[in-house]
Amino acid sequence: MRAVDLIRTKRDGGLLDRAALEWFVAGVTDGSLPDYQASALLMAIVLRGMTPEETAALTDAMVRSGVRVQYSGLPHVAVDKHSTGGVGDKTSIILAPLAAACGAPVPMMSGRGLGHTGGTLDKLESIPGFRTALSLDELRHSVASIGCALIGQTSEVAPADRKLYALRDVTGTVESIPLITASIMSKKIAEGIGGLVLDVKYGDGAFMKTEADARQLAESLVAIGELAGVRTEALLTNMDAPLGRAVGNALEIVESIETLKGRGPADLESLSIEFATRMLVLSGVEKELSCATDRVRQALSSGAGVEKLRQIIRNQGGDPAVVDDYAKLPAAPDRGTIAASRDGVVVAMRAEAVGRAAVGLGAGRDRLDATIDPAVGFTIAAPVGTRVKRGDPIIEIHHRGGRGLAEARRLLESSIVIGDAAPKARPLVLDRIKGRTA
Amino acid sequence: MRAVDLIRTKRDGGLLDRAALEWFVAGVTDGSLPDYQASALLMAIVLRGMTPEETAALTDAMVRSGVRVQYSGLPHVAVDKHSTGGVGDKTSIILAPLAAACGAPVPMMSGRGLGHTGGTLDKLESIPGFRTALSLDELRHSVASIGCALIGQTSEVAPADRKLYALRDVTGTVESIPLITASIMSKKIAEGIGGLVLDVKYGDGAFMKTEADARQLAESLVAIGELAGVRTEALLTNMDAPLGRAVGNALEIVESIETLKGRGPADLESLSIEFATRMLVLSGVEKELSCATDRVRQALSSGAGVEKLRQIIRNQGGDPAVVDDYAKLPAAPDRGTIAASRDGVVVAMRAEAVGRAAVGLGAGRDRLDATIDPAVGFTIAAPVGTRVKRGDPIIEIHHRGGRGLAEARRLLESSIVIGDAAPKARPLVLDRIKGRTA
Repeated sequence: MRAVDLIRTKRDGGLLDRAALEWFVAGVTDGSLPDYQASALLMAIVLRGMTPEETAALTDAMVRSGVRVQYSGLPHVAVDKHSTGGVGDKTSIILAPLAAACGAPVPMMSGRGLGHTGGTLDKLESIPGFRTALSLDELRHSVASIGCALIGQTSEVAPADRKLYALRDVTGTVESIPLITASIMSKKIAEGIGGLVLDVKYGDGAFMKTEADARQLAESLVAIGELAGVRTEALLTNMDAPLGRAVGNALEIVESIETLKGRGPADLESLSIEFATRMLVLSGVEKELSCATDRVRQALSSGAGVEKLRQIIRNQGGDPAVVDDYAKLPAAPDRGTIAASRDGVVVAMRAEAVGRAAVGLGAGRDRLDATIDPAVGFTIAAPVGTRVKRGDPIIEIHHRGGRGLAEARRLLESSIVIGDAAPKARPLVLDRIKGRTA
Repeated sequence: MRAVDLIRTKRDGGLLDRAALEWFVAGVTDGSLPDYQASALLMAIVLRGMTPEETAALTDAMVRSGVRVQYSGLPHVAVDKHSTGGVGDKTSIILAPLAAACGAPVPMMSGRGLGHTGGTLDKLESIPGFRTALSLDELRHSVASIGCALIGQTSEVAPADRKLYALRDVTGTVESIPLITASIMSKKIAEGIGGLVLDVKYGDGAFMKTEADARQLAESLVAIGELAGVRTEALLTNMDAPLGRAVGNALEIVESIETLKGRGPADLESLSIEFATRMLVLSGVEKELSCATDRVRQALSSGAGVEKLRQIIRNQGGDPAVVDDYAKLPAAPDRGTIAASRDGVVVAMRAEAVGRAAVGLGAGRDRLDATIDPAVGFTIAAPVGTRVKRGDPIIEIHHRGGRGLAEARRLLESSIVIGDAAPKARPLVLDRIKGRTA
């Protein structure tokens, strides 16, 4: 097989067969395919697209570039949740312990924040001592013993994806539904789960700006999951405004714990219950959605969820006392406030600008190798729909000595729209795309 | 400037401005731009295209990646001819001495054969001792003293093109009118000529299979030449069947000399006169085409053309005795014949298959670093239009010990179509695309 023939085939709108895609992925993984040929093929894929069959074959080849984790002796099917990324989205930290407390095995592999979106690993690592770099043995042991682990991608899982992603990042070839699908699903399939619920976000702060694009991605992800034998479903959720009221790593841990204690904001609690419910059904813990919802609500009200988080933190080397004493989490020394510029109702708080303001403070990273400050971020005093008087605080800024403050103020002020009437309520979950077996 | 931003701009169908294209070419030339980013951008250009303004800016940046040769004291404007490549196309070796014999300064830079098409340099190097690797000083001196030099591209001329072409060759990004235009025209403009005639071939054995594609390329080449101040015109010529009766390096030198002696095949003589005529006008030697044609025909009949070739060979270290004694050229030891399979008329001899058969014998190269055998090739006994009886020789194969013979036979037999009636004569020159100043 010759790389240039594969490239020309895709360039001219042709199809790459399974053998060709396997050869490509093997060459990327072992380094025998030069990056300049890989990137030319990636660009041809971005511009010519791929059929579902090609995407499935690519995903499968990426799964087989590493190990596919196996679990034995679990009471139910292992399940996970994946989000395409948003601002203030800490649902994973809430729903994983909730689902696990209800009996679903949750081997959750998450990512780091990049650009304006946050990452679950960064949030967890603001807990003193918390280790996200577990080995596959530790992962299996944790799931068997306490039903859950919250870890980062290990080097054994879909190594082709790491190489391809690094190349896509610098060659303008990230934006492609087939490539995004293969990247997400290869990691999830290799994780060894039998059920997956996807949070495909659309709107200002999401990777997909429009509902149509998000729907297309969701359909692609669900189709590929099902083809690999993973019961998969996706929810299309809105990401025009930050989720919940906290943005920033330690601040989001506090909000997650508060939510597990039953004191979280309505949008965040509702979405976390929604996802945990579906995980129970996909896992086989419950058959009916309504029974699953009841069970999740009970885990919330009984404190079983927060207790499970305590177990997870202890199991992964973190200090479980943070659950009861938020002062043990990093805190920023300085505060600033964004106040309402007029009387009215907050009708919009554009998530992307809020996310970029957080990156500027140090809460996120622009480059893969940047370090982050776990303490900084925002708390939202007046979320969308709140009636305010001129001068009322809308956002409180947690900063460190003014680093990034001026730019954050500019971005936050530009993100907030105050109108005369309350905006029409938009459902947080717009639609559900269900796989054949989900 | 960031490479990924340029790539994304072009990927999304946007325009690259002059500064961006200069930055790209400079990065390719000095090696600071990684190949994987260059190839992603090249693929985006292949699939999204470029405006004439972008193509002009890219060409200009490539010209300025090296030196632009200057001539002084020439009696007329320096002119050159370029062909997009064909099978049996040895017109350059005929028209350059003809035009030079008529007074037009001809600093001709040619290329090597690649794939099924032959290359002028390879043909010239079958002349014992002939050096094509002249320095720019030698080039200028030769043009000043004898009015012509036939050389290869020097490292000072458009170095960006060499790097880009090597990358395009292995990344499936050759087939793009803007990129082909910038590649051809950057070298020609940097050569320091004031006039250029292009032979843009279409048909089975050409790079452009259709007249429409060839016309589009011709229009692009002419537009970019004119923008750079080079009087440019293009002829669209047919390349369904090989040109002339010889295919193979030394065999084509013999046919070129025979043509300069007035004994060449009609198609080859006619096309060579056509191009030389236009070079005289572009050079300013003659104002009227008809006068120019008379002058070229006179150079042919008087022997001034063949005498000029003798001078050129001597000037470049070759043995001028080859002009009178073809036995001084390399010859293949063995012969084979392709005979007519039935009575009838040869209605087609597909040039691409003939060219590929020649490569198989060793006359051409599949890879840039392959070596060639100057002696092997074909002579065509019965070109298209010839009435034959079953068993009459159609093609004589000059081979070396049977190397590539079986495959060549298969290809040649598949290339020949014998019908009942003579095919409709097709004009060799289909159309002329003339620049504003040409």
